[in-house]
Amino acid sequence: MTDPTAPRYDVIAIGNAIVDVLSPCDDATIAELGLNRGGMALIDADRARTIYAAMGPATERSGGSAANTLAGMAALGARCAFVGQVAQDQFGDVFRHDINAGGIAFDTPARAGDVPTGQCLILVSPDGERTMNTLLGAGQFLHADAIDDALIASAGILYLEGYMWDPVEPRAAMRRAMAAARAAGRIIAFTASESFIIALHRDDFLGMIADGMIDILFVNESELATLTGEDDFEAGLAAVAGKVPVLVATRSEKGAVAIAHGTRAEVAAEPVVKVVDTTGAGDQFAAGFLSGYVKGEPLERCLKRGAICASEVIAHYGPRPEADMQALMAERL
Amino acid sequence: MTDPTAPRYDVIAIGNAIVDVLSPCDDATIAELGLNRGGMALIDADRARTIYAAMGPATERSGGSAANTLAGMAALGARCAFVGQVAQDQFGDVFRHDINAGGIAFDTPARAGDVPTGQCLILVSPDGERTMNTLLGAGQFLHADAIDDALIASAGILYLEGYMWDPVEPRAAMRRAMAAARAAGRIIAFTASESFIIALHRDDFLGMIADGMIDILFVNESELATLTGEDDFEAGLAAVAGKVPVLVATRSEKGAVAIAHGTRAEVAAEPVVKVVDTTGAGDQFAAGFLSGYVKGEPLERCLKRGAICASEVIAHYGPRPEADMQALMAERL
Repeated sequence: MTDPTAPRYDVIAIGNAIVDVLSPCDDATIAELGLNRGGMALIDADRARTIYAAMGPATERSGGSAANTLAGMAALGARCAFVGQVAQDQFGDVFRHDINAGGIAFDTPARAGDVPTGQCLILVSPDGERTMNTLLGAGQFLHADAIDDALIASAGILYLEGYMWDPVEPRAAMRRAMAAARAAGRIIAFTASESFIIALHRDDFLGMIADGMIDILFVNESELATLTGEDDFEAGLAAVAGKVPVLVATRSEKGAVAIAHGTRAEVAAEPVVKVVDTTGAGDQFAAGFLSGYVKGEPLERCLKRGAICASEVIAHYGPRPEADMQALMAERL
Repeated sequence: MTDPTAPRYDVIAIGNAIVDVLSPCDDATIAELGLNRGGMALIDADRARTIYAAMGPATERSGGSAANTLAGMAALGARCAFVGQVAQDQFGDVFRHDINAGGIAFDTPARAGDVPTGQCLILVSPDGERTMNTLLGAGQFLHADAIDDALIASAGILYLEGYMWDPVEPRAAMRRAMAAARAAGRIIAFTASESFIIALHRDDFLGMIADGMIDILFVNESELATLTGEDDFEAGLAAVAGKVPVLVATRSEKGAVAIAHGTRAEVAAEPVVKVVDTTGAGDQFAAGFLSGYVKGEPLERCLKRGAICASEVIAHYGPRPEADMQALMAERL
């Protein structure tokens, strides 16, 4: 007999449903546009027109941080489901096709009306650094009613994207999903996404951590500093490590650290012949880490998986893996 | 004083305004879908849904044969203008942005209504061969009224895409443009595009050739055979060569031949380390050839330029150049 409490999915994620518009760009253009090189900014339609007009010929690909992570996990064989809001338009069709084509369940209905599917204008510098400008579009209207509690309960891990904490409706949707996951005894993972999100909602995040609502927290160096107020990396780690069961802190080319239940592990960054585009690096690190975590692998091996996935995605354009990830993992792990 | 008859543009093209949806694909899927591997088929919306559902995660890029050729010519420094029909939708915005971002003038207004901007579903086989499935969309409604005779007269060469000869309205638009170009004493170039187009409209093409309406004709081996009824390549060349001032016949990895005003030149294919995606090979060959032709270069040098452009585009995904083409040309010509 099947165990009725066994999860149907390894992970379900709630995140931005967005199409990336990627174009190579020199740093002078980034400066002229007044963009924060390497960061992410939320923009409105007018600003989007200005930035898009300054960009060269572009490539469109499905993106969204948590969706990218699921694409990476699915490529490694995990069973995945996604919750996010697209509109009834061409970018919405593209996003849904690419998610489904990756073998990921995605049943949130498209939203009618004039608000388009979200897009992220990404300027890629010659050194591979990406500067992101996000028009949230329909994604900001993901409503709590779109959360199916039974679906949330059917996944071993609920993975939440920090970018979605800023707009009011998705925040309520994520709170509902967290309650459903807790009620079902599932693991809740949260990725901080961006320092300005932490800065805007620091009390929320600290409150959720204090309330034991976050089991796995993903941060990068700068997000950790914003969250803890500690500029020193080690001091930042010390300030959070005891408060979440699993803390994963990434440091780009300096590798990553994880502290789980008092145990610490570290990994160096994997070598990359040429960094082409760092879009998706953090998302794929999380994918690799979680792909090991769901199998109960040791912490250091989970980190190594993360580093391998990140090194694959930064070696080509676009935020989702292109290599045969199971073969790559078999070879390099 | 400026010469009032000097053209403002080197070339103006009329062609499909389309976004390509590219995805790697194994040959079994191409067989299951009943597709003609390596060819182009016109499809309706139902068929598009079936094919798209069978495709893996994809990348979207602006395409369209003549538009690709202009992108290549513009990258080589030519002054270009485009005429084509997009709809008022996201793919229309993408197409217009990418054309404009390449420095190409494009003023045809977007079409209102429910018919979307055209798209081409492209399945790329492991050996790089592409199989194209085109949903013409708004492009089939390019109307003769969209042709500005003065704009046509302002370009040294009018370049016409054979794919657009099949739908009725664009055919009328192209006939009007040819008349305007002839009246202004401009050169008319025609690319045959695909054998089935030639098969459907052979009498039209033979009639235009007989009437002296085509100055430069681009064909590949199979199109030449369909046009002339000669299976032998040399016999095919002999059947057309005297009837058009310039004949350019491409043969993929076997190189290309041009016969102009009785003079014959040949070129071998340029070496390519790995063929990734042949989408745009013929379009970029034409771009390279014409970039030399507009400068009055010798026939063999025009062919060599075509071969260099084709070799660049088949070494990466997508139908338009990604390298610094002027630098590449300076190095390899």
